[in-house]
Amino acid sequence: MIQAVFFDMDDTIYDTSGFAAIARRAAVKSMVHNGLKCSEDEGYECLMEIVKEKGSNYDKHFNILTERINGEEDPLIIVNGIITYHNTKFAMLKLEPESFSILLYLKSKNYKVGLITNGKKLKQWEKLVRLGVYPFFDDVVTSEDVGIEKPDVEIFKIAMDRLNVTADTSIMIGNNFDTDIIGACNAGMQSMIINSDITDEQQELLDKRGYTVKKLNNLIDLMKIL
Amino acid sequence: MIQAVFFDMDDTIYDTSGFAAIARRAAVKSMVHNGLKCSEDEGYECLMEIVKEKGSNYDKHFNILTERINGEEDPLIIVNGIITYHNTKFAMLKLEPESFSILLYLKSKNYKVGLITNGKKLKQWEKLVRLGVYPFFDDVVTSEDVGIEKPDVEIFKIAMDRLNVTADTSIMIGNNFDTDIIGACNAGMQSMIINSDITDEQQELLDKRGYTVKKLNNLIDLMKIL
Repeated sequence: MIQAVFFDMDDTIYDTSGFAAIARRAAVKSMVHNGLKCSEDEGYECLMEIVKEKGSNYDKHFNILTERINGEEDPLIIVNGIITYHNTKFAMLKLEPESFSILLYLKSKNYKVGLITNGKKLKQWEKLVRLGVYPFFDDVVTSEDVGIEKPDVEIFKIAMDRLNVTADTSIMIGNNFDTDIIGACNAGMQSMIINSDITDEQQELLDKRGYTVKKLNNLIDLMKIL
Repeated sequence: MIQAVFFDMDDTIYDTSGFAAIARRAAVKSMVHNGLKCSEDEGYECLMEIVKEKGSNYDKHFNILTERINGEEDPLIIVNGIITYHNTKFAMLKLEPESFSILLYLKSKNYKVGLITNGKKLKQWEKLVRLGVYPFFDDVVTSEDVGIEKPDVEIFKIAMDRLNVTADTSIMIGNNFDTDIIGACNAGMQSMIINSDITDEQQELLDKRGYTVKKLNNLIDLMKIL
């Protein structure tokens, strides 16, 4: 009997990668328009290399992009990138269509609902507040907050302790096999993978370990295993 | 014969302090609404103390405010402050009424126009781009950029060199007597103080040093001395 449902945030309840891709394309378009000496496709490709090198929480992607393409930093080009990126991101900010119904359903049935996310505390909280969904969550655990990242078993244990539930009554829902699913499995929880394709090998491993993995197309899939 | 007009940015072409005060009040209101345990006035007063202690470019004012008032950081309260602050600031962002006409007038008369500002390069450029006035400026000098702050004479010399003008054909317009006016005076430029009251003592010093100080109420005042 499931009592608590834990969610991952990025690319699970919120299409972080999809929105970031569009916002970055918009930013590069504006930078090219303001003097970045390359095509929009070249600029975007170079930006993605920089994001890969530095990680998504680094705050000088556009400085480096300008330096690599033009040979020097240019504040006009950089701030046009920053402003367009933020304007686009905030204009698009909305929840995955299924997320709101699922959260509402869970609360109506008195499940405990938690969030376990790798990322910076305030950055992740800002998304929850801007999306307007933070009241759905009984608890939010960020890796920055507790100093441990998924798939470390400890972050899942902390999250369960905080909601006063045990692994055999908890399920983790996420998009990332290596962090969300493996971690939850090792913590003894059930889990469900969504927004992600898994290999036959992964599926085999999952079947052996005896916990559920499905693609979440609608509320029905979740209700079936609750 | 004046050939180049240099402007300060904050509280000269843009009412930085006025807009920041409103945005901070809005932020505190939202924080109190979300659980900051004080009145709005108490919260604002405490925030202003923190800004004074840490400077306006520090990026954790709201963290400290939450910790001082509630005894601990609370991400929900902090991000509500941040989001409201930014939304309010961007909603209000506009030029001082006189600034646009003056910049347009100067360009129509082929004056060289520069900006000399103490502050972070990208933060200051972001204002110029969001305000839509950066095309008016032939050159922008930020203290971060050159590693020297007003009133140091060097920053004025660099600005004049970049526009290829001399001190006797340059005027500095700013709101701060101690940085803009004293600095420009020591660099041998004329100057004009605006948006600021000056003491009799300051006026006396200015008269002695033989350069012009006026309150800029409209274009006429500036045209008279050009």
